[in-house]
Amino acid sequence: MPEMNTQIVLASRPQGWVEESNFRLERQPLASPAEGQVLLRNHYLSLDPYMRGRMNESASYAASVQLGEVMVGETISEVVESRNPKFQPGEMVSARAGWQSYALSDGTGLRKVDTRRVPASAYLGAVGMPGVTAWYGPLKIGEPKDGETVVVSAASGAVGSVVGQIAKIKGCRVVGVAGGPLKCDYVVKELGLDACIDHRAPDLGKALAAATPKGIDVYFENVGGPILDAVLARCNPFARIPVCGMIADYNATERYGVKNLISVVGNRLRLQGFIISDHLEIWPEALGQLAQWIGEGRIKYRETIVQGLENAPRAFVGLFKGENLGKLVVQC
Amino acid sequence: MPEMNTQIVLASRPQGWVEESNFRLERQPLASPAEGQVLLRNHYLSLDPYMRGRMNESASYAASVQLGEVMVGETISEVVESRNPKFQPGEMVSARAGWQSYALSDGTGLRKVDTRRVPASAYLGAVGMPGVTAWYGPLKIGEPKDGETVVVSAASGAVGSVVGQIAKIKGCRVVGVAGGPLKCDYVVKELGLDACIDHRAPDLGKALAAATPKGIDVYFENVGGPILDAVLARCNPFARIPVCGMIADYNATERYGVKNLISVVGNRLRLQGFIISDHLEIWPEALGQLAQWIGEGRIKYRETIVQGLENAPRAFVGLFKGENLGKLVVQC
Repeated sequence: MPEMNTQIVLASRPQGWVEESNFRLERQPLASPAEGQVLLRNHYLSLDPYMRGRMNESASYAASVQLGEVMVGETISEVVESRNPKFQPGEMVSARAGWQSYALSDGTGLRKVDTRRVPASAYLGAVGMPGVTAWYGPLKIGEPKDGETVVVSAASGAVGSVVGQIAKIKGCRVVGVAGGPLKCDYVVKELGLDACIDHRAPDLGKALAAATPKGIDVYFENVGGPILDAVLARCNPFARIPVCGMIADYNATERYGVKNLISVVGNRLRLQGFIISDHLEIWPEALGQLAQWIGEGRIKYRETIVQGLENAPRAFVGLFKGENLGKLVVQC
Repeated sequence: MPEMNTQIVLASRPQGWVEESNFRLERQPLASPAEGQVLLRNHYLSLDPYMRGRMNESASYAASVQLGEVMVGETISEVVESRNPKFQPGEMVSARAGWQSYALSDGTGLRKVDTRRVPASAYLGAVGMPGVTAWYGPLKIGEPKDGETVVVSAASGAVGSVVGQIAKIKGCRVVGVAGGPLKCDYVVKELGLDACIDHRAPDLGKALAAATPKGIDVYFENVGGPILDAVLARCNPFARIPVCGMIADYNATERYGVKNLISVVGNRLRLQGFIISDHLEIWPEALGQLAQWIGEGRIKYRETIVQGLENAPRAFVGLFKGENLGKLVVQC
């Protein structure tokens, strides 16, 4: 009997909150690589908020996953069989192999990773797509200057945690926003941010004002909703808001209405959305700098590693409820 | 008895909608210019939406008008007495002399205007601050390209009407949004825009979709509220939104909540607020180009001229109810 490939496919489109029942586990016989292909064994799968958008029918910036298709996602994978001269069995690569234990690839988009220097899973986080996102947003859009005040939402998350630490490296006062005292503690004591606000606090606006006595110059947006409103009310003239995500809206059937956009006029704000895959040209520079900062201990990261691909749906649902700390990864 | 200066002062701060009772007419004896000063006789006063913000206590981008102070505003004025060698009696200048019939000035910020080539009142509109605003927003932030679709709100107004015509000059499909069939008619038949949507229409989103079959690449924002939401839902990837104003919010006690900001992420939108007085360096270039386009008949404008300073408060209240067509000016 051939070895089987375990896959998580999209079973149904979520109405509002994503649920485990929107996914289905399937087992398929493992195919062999054709000429030019490699067979990948996926060791780690990244779970990221953007995947929620791919589950919708409506046009997001990338194509939707179709019903019955394997969910998309970044992986760290091992070449186990190769009919492509560029790859040798045993080599580790980063890939977009999706929520499955094996995948075939013609080599397009595979990037060899050195797991002797950096743990394999980190290539899905601080030295992967989230890290590059966290590097691009503040440095290329936010451009924080020494002494300015930077606020970052989802500050304990894969992207936010790196954003906050980069802003500290740039000499800013940095205030995180995170969910609950444990995460806030981590943000201040381990990541070294100047303050962290619990977004569940009864008066978010008051807490934010207390933590940003000189107003806000850069806000790195991961969340949207009431946090954005509170920040808009504290923005200084010419503040910059790189918009990476609005996770508060991803599962909403009725979206939050943002009321303080008038601050964009009076304070000449710039809100700018970005998607890091548009900027492949900066990846080498960003990854090099991130690896250096991590090596020097100036950027710390944490991971929540879930064991077993079959647990990916439950972990993904939990991602939107704030259950994980740091980068959420599945060990397949 | 000395001649009197008629002034409109701020009597009380509006709660929500501005009302005539928020203003008070006063008469003061006319002062004589000191050494270095000129005495100005204000012929035309500009009424602009931004003035509503100055009536609030809360910090806007410029200082509030204090209770009992003369309302701020741009004027076209005649030098009637001069103790400043740079100005001669009889010269016409643009000034920020406020809602009053006379003013003293040390000459700072006065700009001589040639009323033989262009009617004096036009220096408050198409070849004044609104015109330069309409030039800067699309050309320096929106950067519309030939064949792109541009939408402009308040399309029959002082700023919007010039924005729309500039976008046509740049080769774009241009869709206006205005209040009521008369204004929409003017926007299409006189200004030459490709279509105009009545924002009072029952299904704004549907009307906008029909008028923008290729989506929206640039949106010049004057209004905010439901129009912004409808536009966000139609934006193409990498669309630009210069934000000049959000008049829908200026008199609101409860502001509209914008629900479609998530489009900023997926479509990598850029929203950028600006205030034209930050960019004095571009005024000469902008004014020169506007004067040329007006001379060539490529930019048309209309004015609503109200007679008598005592009628300024009523006209200003009407500005927010969409009562005027084109630039609103008071002949003092």
